[in-house]
Amino acid sequence: MEFRTKLTLFSLLLLSANASDNGLALTPQMGWNTWNHFGCGISEDTILSAANAIKQHELDKLGYNYVLMDDCWHAPARDPSTNAPVADPEKFPNGVKDLSDKIHAMGLKFGIYSSAGTKTCAGRFGSLGFEEIDAKTYAEWGVDYLKYDNCNNEGRAGTPLISYERYNNMSMALNATGRPILYSMCNWGEDGPWNFAPNIANSWRISGDIYDNFARYDDRCPCTSMLDCKLAGFHCAAARIIDFAAPVGQKAGTGHWNDLDMLEIGNGGMTHDEYVAHFTMWAILRSPLILGNDVTNMSNDTLSIITNQALIAVNQDPGTGPANRIWKKEVFTGDGDISLWQGSLQNNVFVVAVMNTSPHNQTVDILMEDAFLDQGAAYQAQPYEFFDLWQKDSNGNWGKSIGTVQGKFSVTVNT
Amino acid sequence: MEFRTKLTLFSLLLLSANASDNGLALTPQMGWNTWNHFGCGISEDTILSAANAIKQHELDKLGYNYVLMDDCWHAPARDPSTNAPVADPEKFPNGVKDLSDKIHAMGLKFGIYSSAGTKTCAGRFGSLGFEEIDAKTYAEWGVDYLKYDNCNNEGRAGTPLISYERYNNMSMALNATGRPILYSMCNWGEDGPWNFAPNIANSWRISGDIYDNFARYDDRCPCTSMLDCKLAGFHCAAARIIDFAAPVGQKAGTGHWNDLDMLEIGNGGMTHDEYVAHFTMWAILRSPLILGNDVTNMSNDTLSIITNQALIAVNQDPGTGPANRIWKKEVFTGDGDISLWQGSLQNNVFVVAVMNTSPHNQTVDILMEDAFLDQGAAYQAQPYEFFDLWQKDSNGNWGKSIGTVQGKFSVTVNT
Amino acid sequence: MEFRTKLTLFSLLLLSANASDNGLALTPQMGWNTWNHFGCGISEDTILSAANAIKQHELDKLGYNYVLMDDCWHAPARDPSTNAPVADPEKFPNGVKDLSDKIHAMGLKFGIYSSAGTKTCAGRFGSLGFEEIDAKTYAEWGVDYLKYDNCNNEGRAGTPLISYERYNNMSMALNATGRPILYSMCNWGEDGPWNFAPNIANSWRISGDIYDNFARYDDRCPCTSMLDCKLAGFHCAAARIIDFAAPVGQKAGTGHWNDLDMLEIGNGGMTHDEYVAHFTMWAILRSPLILGNDVTNMSNDTLSIITNQALIAVNQDPGTGPANRIWKKEVFTGDGDISLWQGSLQNNVFVVAVMNTSPHNQTVDILMEDAFLDQGAAYQAQPYEFFDLWQKDSNGNWGKSIGTVQGKFSVTVNT
Amino acid sequence: MEFRTKLTLFSLLLLSANASDNGLALTPQMGWNTWNHFGCGISEDTILSAANAIKQHELDKLGYNYVLMDDCWHAPARDPSTNAPVADPEKFPNGVKDLSDKIHAMGLKFGIYSSAGTKTCAGRFGSLGFEEIDAKTYAEWGVDYLKYDNCNNEGRAGTPLISYERYNNMSMALNATGRPILYSMCNWGEDGPWNFAPNIANSWRISGDIYDNFARYDDRCPCTSMLDCKLAGFHCAAARIIDFAAPVGQKAGTGHWNDLDMLEIGNGGMTHDEYVAHFTMWAILRSPLILGNDVTNMSNDTLSIITNQALIAVNQDPGTGPANRIWKKEVFTGDGDISLWQGSLQNNVFVVAVMNTSPHNQTVDILMEDAFLDQGAAYQAQPYEFFDLWQKDSNGNWGKSIGTVQGKFSVTVNT
Repeated sequence: MEFRTKLTLFSLLLLSANASDNGLALTPQMGWNTWNHFGCGISEDTILSAANAIKQHELDKLGYNYVLMDDCWHAPARDPSTNAPVADPEKFPNGVKDLSDKIHAMGLKFGIYSSAGTKTCAGRFGSLGFEEIDAKTYAEWGVDYLKYDNCNNEGRAGTPLISYERYNNMSMALNATGRPILYSMCNWGEDGPWNFAPNIANSWRISGDIYDNFARYDDRCPCTSMLDCKLAGFHCAAARIIDFAAPVGQKAGTGHWNDLDMLEIGNGGMTHDEYVAHFTMWAILRSPLILGNDVTNMSNDTLSIITNQALIAVNQDPGTGPANRIWKKEVFTGDGDISLWQGSLQNNVFVVAVMNTSPHNQTVDILMEDAFLDQGAAYQAQPYEFFDLWQKDSNGNWGKSIGTVQGKFSVTVNT
Repeated sequence: MEFRTKLTLFSLLLLSANASDNGLALTPQMGWNTWNHFGCGISEDTILSAANAIKQHELDKLGYNYVLMDDCWHAPARDPSTNAPVADPEKFPNGVKDLSDKIHAMGLKFGIYSSAGTKTCAGRFGSLGFEEIDAKTYAEWGVDYLKYDNCNNEGRAGTPLISYERYNNMSMALNATGRPILYSMCNWGEDGPWNFAPNIANSWRISGDIYDNFARYDDRCPCTSMLDCKLAGFHCAAARIIDFAAPVGQKAGTGHWNDLDMLEIGNGGMTHDEYVAHFTMWAILRSPLILGNDVTNMSNDTLSIITNQALIAVNQDPGTGPANRIWKKEVFTGDGDISLWQGSLQNNVFVVAVMNTSPHNQTVDILMEDAFLDQGAAYQAQPYEFFDLWQKDSNGNWGKSIGTVQGKFSVTVNT
Repeated sequence: MEFRTKLTLFSLLLLSANASDNGLALTPQMGWNTWNHFGCGISEDTILSAANAIKQHELDKLGYNYVLMDDCWHAPARDPSTNAPVADPEKFPNGVKDLSDKIHAMGLKFGIYSSAGTKTCAGRFGSLGFEEIDAKTYAEWGVDYLKYDNCNNEGRAGTPLISYERYNNMSMALNATGRPILYSMCNWGEDGPWNFAPNIANSWRISGDIYDNFARYDDRCPCTSMLDCKLAGFHCAAARIIDFAAPVGQKAGTGHWNDLDMLEIGNGGMTHDEYVAHFTMWAILRSPLILGNDVTNMSNDTLSIITNQALIAVNQDPGTGPANRIWKKEVFTGDGDISLWQGSLQNNVFVVAVMNTSPHNQTVDILMEDAFLDQGAAYQAQPYEFFDLWQKDSNGNWGKSIGTVQGKFSVTVNT
Repeated sequence: MEFRTKLTLFSLLLLSANASDNGLALTPQMGWNTWNHFGCGISEDTILSAANAIKQHELDKLGYNYVLMDDCWHAPARDPSTNAPVADPEKFPNGVKDLSDKIHAMGLKFGIYSSAGTKTCAGRFGSLGFEEIDAKTYAEWGVDYLKYDNCNNEGRAGTPLISYERYNNMSMALNATGRPILYSMCNWGEDGPWNFAPNIANSWRISGDIYDNFARYDDRCPCTSMLDCKLAGFHCAAARIIDFAAPVGQKAGTGHWNDLDMLEIGNGGMTHDEYVAHFTMWAILRSPLILGNDVTNMSNDTLSIITNQALIAVNQDPGTGPANRIWKKEVFTGDGDISLWQGSLQNNVFVVAVMNTSPHNQTVDILMEDAFLDQGAAYQAQPYEFFDLWQKDSNGNWGKSIGTVQGKFSVTVNT
């Protein structure tokens, strides 16, 4: 068997599991966010145009139902009498409540952004010390989702408890509103949020900001592991974030997810195969899938990647969690690596992926002994029907059966 | 001399030491725990059946006298009026006190489980903030042992003092009951419990959870040392836990022990030789020996390993402490290693083990100069009578004399 | 193309950006400080002589307008009745106010020094606990700049919040005076000041003290990264500080800068080429440019380096930030490295530098793909007019056009 | 030139410096301590016998004037009415005050031991929470010196401030007594005492406990650097402690010293050459020189090493500080290393040492350029008269002139 992408992905079918939790994000949230493509250049129009594009492309039917307004929606200052947050009256002449109503009228959900600091990352007023009034106002505005950033935290980081308390203050404030608001922590993996965030948030970022590049090391994302990283930074390539995610998958599950950051598909910095690998790994690692491109102007290629229903089904499989990395092997010293990942879905379906970050084509044997390491000998010995999730079946649906495998199979993963 | 296991073990006899302490666990606790084999699927029947099996196999006569009920014994909530813990009325229709009485009537001791967090690892109610009522209730129930886990600690970790205080709260609550309750800390080695736990607990876990594998690296147990590990994780193979234990043996002794986690012998993931090495190293490192298999259904092989009285005698030798690693040598790069361990027992008996984690047979010379490094030149020069603790003597007892050794001897340790 | 220095530097011109901030240090501060050359041997005369030399050489016209009095200006003790700081009456017979007036009368600005500890580094009285009276007195004295050191902090370091609070106390005290006083934090990079200092200071040191050497490792500057360094030390060579600066450039910008420490140019420990590299990298990394030599006695060579107006223009370019390291390659193991740096200026001007810390000449191809990594494909494809900033044009100004480059160009960087 | 020891040491004479401080330990303290040889087996007799031996060998005339009683002098409990510490009435039938008077009558000084914990390392009552009554009692007993250990600190470690406060409590209590008591902190290098201890103590241990071995790695001393070590441990070989000392020499000086732990000379675990290297490095690194052998029973060889007046003069040189490591070179991978050290004494005398920890003889060129790295070009060019401090001159005094050296000289350092 040979495959032509940077990543080889299979789904394997055999036999049943289930779990549940109350509240939101029972499966990872999906949607679109203004930041990666528009940065501070947002307005009511930007957001409504994107919402219209989501409806037009029926992305919401696939699960992309959160429309998220990131940084720079703010007026220069809070309301001087009440301290309530105020939106920029020029960018949002009808106010945030009106925007939220329009989004809701389209059957979509609406999200907002703030920072657990004195200012946001772009220098707007932050929520540190204003958690209650902010949460209350968001609820009044009909907000369904809060992305809560980490800039300008005034030294309130460096030990788990200090980060926990800063983020828990907003968690409690959101809960106190009585409105269900998905709480998306964005503290860049500082102080090990996977250890404390599951009890207070629906998702937490695990690294510095992604940039539109597959595997390049950049000095601005300096840590080689996030377990005790003191400068999360930004310009983290997709493959580096995947590395960061490998040990912490164990901490995610129903209602609380590792957030690998927003998707870059369609922003132009990676090849088709790299974007396929990016989308696949985000999906099987159960990251929130938040589009970061201009959805009003997408190529067919971009659209085809982000609408792979088979991968979305893996990402949204209920009651199950992230894939694990079974092994990772350096190909040539300092030259990238090849790795095997496996995840369990409901009903004895499994997903297996092989990723190659090196500039060399790689042919490897995948042993069922490895792929079913966690499941044990009985599973390792079974035959499996294989589906290639990046091929379409005869009905034009993603996921084509490519035969039965037992014991092992060989794959070639291109550069 | 040649031996056929992954591990070569000797006991060496020459001449006397003694120490004592008040309270419990003067030697490492022994027993059986529900978790490794049954997980959440426990009930009164599971536990009583195991207790009966312990009696039937006379495991208690060897020292395995604690029957430990791990997570998932809980009702959905505490008693709403008193906040007292309540057991699941379906799994434990006669209540915990009745179960405890039955265990005691069999001459065994009974243990329970909770977590120093808002919830247990399986999501049941935790003891954080409820230490007094919980300890009091456990005492009323006739509990003899508490395993106290670390899940859902709400960010109260990351510096030694914060972990110490969280665990000391339960220590003081247990002491206040007046009932002697062995206190088994399970904070996974976070914040260096070997530094602070000896004064407040009888044992403390030193790593993430064991899994039933001898030496495989798994991404979910990501740290290479536990001295400053920020994600203890799980899926830690036996040989990795042994590595973690090497520097911290110095902190254990009468009444306070490093807990290498429960035994996996009999659960099927290792070979006979690997289980022998697992049992041996837990014994000589003076870990609590808590069976984790289904004791109602054991193979002769499993039974023979866990009933090696010579090793149990080493583990339970009074007034002495863990073996130390004298040296560790990498065999081929990244291919595992071979290591020499030595421990002192009472009356000038010593124990020496050679462990091989590589896939190659290894023949090495053991120098008395190394084996008696701590004892000095006089000891290094003596002749010793050697006993192989994995052979039986002519009376069928473990520990066969295999001659006298002086200066050095050669061993071959198989893969 | 071949260049004869340790460092090859270009400016590339194409097309516009802008930002601003209120307050001081909109661009990195420039000036002269007593410490590197005079240490504790200072007096009114030392400082006025230096100020006169600055005027005579018209260094102030280039931007060097701060005259900074470092440690050892102090009387043996504070004023016993008011606790106000007092200057040494022998060294400063006319008092600090008089000295400050004289400096101001010359059109220059005046700075002072203290430590956020019980004593300064040289053992004089420190400001810890005396922030208000000290800031008030400095303001009365006409002080324009405070360098605030980290010695004798009595254990108040080790977590970001504790360092933040200690330094924020002085920040608030300075603000409370109503006088604009540039606040230069000098906590040696401890606890990650780049994370918390931008909101409270105009610049912050990122490492232990520089010494007059280009690239030698010295045990007294022991950390290999500053992200979690527990002993900043001193005797840090210029190239090591540049390494430390690489990941933290992202945190600097208008009004808040990474301080790579004072310049050593003219103090004799480096070659001409090394001083050129030292000055260039400080300039493009947007470090404050604080002369540390004896400005009353400078060689023509020293003068020519510190008066390179092209580099000063890069350093003082408004609204833009530090250059980033695009790549760094080890030349021979342990033998130093070669690195590519790129920065963006206003109006589509860019600066590119190649640095060689090895003892071998290096010829490398600079790809526009690398140099414009952050700007993307359109920029990478353009032709650029190149200026060598260490050559003079036909008018005798630094920065000579050396032709147009597209795609790539080759440079040789000498040892 | 060839030398026959593990270590080659020179003193170099040229031209003047001076500093001073108030209080004790203006130069590193010297003396004898009970622990290394006698452990808990001490009594009035042990201590008086040692004091007599010190007088008999006139060791006090060389500076060894502190007689230090380590752990295990305690009665089982404090005085129940006053909480004052009480000595073991069997070991010290005449009380500590009487012992102290006798020591003083011999012209020696007397020291005691406690721990900044609830118990001492040997389990006796500790001083945590009893600082005032203990300091007061020590003063009444005529104590001149306190060694203050770190056992059983109940989690009060892990950040600098928490360690600082725990140790500062005793510092303030000692000061409050009005009696000058040398304060010797023994927190094993945890939390970076070199950063905070100089203001509160006369010396501080920088590592786990020494053991009587020159260079062997032992798992029980697991850290490879002390800058952020979480388990100082014990069984640290002399050469490892020297490595630990290299970066922190910068923090020591008049009245506050890095303590490399007590001397092992005479205890039998090293060769003559190794003990010579041990004594030399302790001397030039300005460690306290506290004998740890049985001074009532010394070989001539032991006596000759510890009475090298030339080395003692280096150690006690007033107003100057520790030698620095100029370079360290690995000889063969993992096989030990060779290093060059240089220190400055008063009056333009310098000390240079070359240490070889490998099992190979090493011949190296010592360049004056390296040896006078800190002093600069003028010093590097001078001729120096060389003294070998391990040879005796014609008067039988240690330190023999062996000629003049300029530029460089070659040495062979044996294994």
